[in-house]
Amino acid sequence: MVKQIAYLGPVGTYTEAASLLYDPEAELISFPSITAVVAAVDSKMAIEGVVPIENSLEGSVTDTLDLLIHDSNLSIKHEIVIPIEHCLLVKPGGLAQDVKSIYSHPQALAQCRRYIERIFPGGQPIASLSTSAAVEDMLRSPLPSAAIATSRAADIYGAEIIDQGIQDNLANHTRFVVLAQYDHPPTGRDKTSLCFSFNDDSPGKLYSVMGHFATRKINLAKVESRPNKEILGRYIFLIDLDGHRKDAIVQEALSCVEAEVSMMKVFGSYPRYQDF
Amino acid sequence: MVKQIAYLGPVGTYTEAASLLYDPEAELISFPSITAVVAAVDSKMAIEGVVPIENSLEGSVTDTLDLLIHDSNLSIKHEIVIPIEHCLLVKPGGLAQDVKSIYSHPQALAQCRRYIERIFPGGQPIASLSTSAAVEDMLRSPLPSAAIATSRAADIYGAEIIDQGIQDNLANHTRFVVLAQYDHPPTGRDKTSLCFSFNDDSPGKLYSVMGHFATRKINLAKVESRPNKEILGRYIFLIDLDGHRKDAIVQEALSCVEAEVSMMKVFGSYPRYQDF
Repeated sequence: MVKQIAYLGPVGTYTEAASLLYDPEAELISFPSITAVVAAVDSKMAIEGVVPIENSLEGSVTDTLDLLIHDSNLSIKHEIVIPIEHCLLVKPGGLAQDVKSIYSHPQALAQCRRYIERIFPGGQPIASLSTSAAVEDMLRSPLPSAAIATSRAADIYGAEIIDQGIQDNLANHTRFVVLAQYDHPPTGRDKTSLCFSFNDDSPGKLYSVMGHFATRKINLAKVESRPNKEILGRYIFLIDLDGHRKDAIVQEALSCVEAEVSMMKVFGSYPRYQDF
Repeated sequence: MVKQIAYLGPVGTYTEAASLLYDPEAELISFPSITAVVAAVDSKMAIEGVVPIENSLEGSVTDTLDLLIHDSNLSIKHEIVIPIEHCLLVKPGGLAQDVKSIYSHPQALAQCRRYIERIFPGGQPIASLSTSAAVEDMLRSPLPSAAIATSRAADIYGAEIIDQGIQDNLANHTRFVVLAQYDHPPTGRDKTSLCFSFNDDSPGKLYSVMGHFATRKINLAKVESRPNKEILGRYIFLIDLDGHRKDAIVQEALSCVEAEVSMMKVFGSYPRYQDF
């Protein structure tokens, strides 16, 4: 039976590209929101779900973090990192010099802002719901316009690529996670993601919690905070650490942390992404 | 001469409400983006600028953080915290039961999601550029529709309020900052905001930096990270601490921090907001 993977669609988006890279054999099912991807895995409509979690320019995808913290008991089983390579698409036969408006997802528009200002000084950026939706919006537009999207979206929707690698900053990567009912067994080159919070004033305690990792030489790959959604100024902290939750030293550190916090949730351990 | 304050507009938004609360006598000038507000203060078109920096549900306004980190040398001179009180607006004489679509800024739609599902189970949420733009979109819509916005927007645009306090979570506050050429002199109840980063692998060093505050019993009100925009997995850390940068103990801690980091930028010291 073919494995079914839910992903944040539609076809032609970067999440689809990450899913294809992760498992070229699987049947990919597109969902319109991160919440819907999680629901599809929760209900076992799909065995795994792929969603973006972090971009090297824009930072975390807070919808994904908040779902992991508050609304889902799924585990992170894998991570995938892909370079973001934006292309400029027009209608077949369209010419760059005629372009009046440029459609894309707001993040992609932001990532190509200087390019747009340089190439289309009078052009109007218009927000679309996804890079793929931008191609559809562009094709439907009565005015000469362009879209910023993946090269695959050009193939799928029958648009023409007139420029590529147009992002202002070439160091543009997005990290995706594969969500499933269970996380990944130890491989020896693993990461673990978790969150925790405190009942009272937290920053002094954060220092103490970080000490449990520092004294054991456990490297923290990421430290981040999200609002606890109750009081302004109170946070839930998110940590990615090097190691598997079943490693003895990580287990020991996590027990010490658990004794100090009011809430701790381990999102899972998974192999560190290598080809990057 | 009347003091001129730039703010993230248009009129009727929460940023305008914060600006009015901050200085009811000032002449408020509306700008369409956070970048434009900063540019207005940089160019001395306005003496101060008001922009949102953090919401208790949605987290940081990353555009504001990234501007402070990368693109502006303005200082934070004040902070303002206001409760977010969403209202449901219709055309004059409009009826709730006819509503087919609900316009608002995506953050406001997210904050009223359960209310919308309960009251308008078949209603379609539609994203607008601001809560004020949502009122204009609603008034122009040929279909019976509603907008989620401030009560002031109802007055300004001539819409009718049919419900208020409709946010799902009542603990909904937004924190704004006042940007200016200089920060605020010490008042004895101050906060200081800064950012720093490291040339190499940073998380172990973050622990060391936090130690300079912990050993001096300086409370950290906030710890956050943003991508450094160069390499995925490398971060710039943002800290809000209790105290003024001219307090002897804070000065001492900041000197120790500066010696350990590759970049440090103090955004300013300012009175802690009290009426909250």
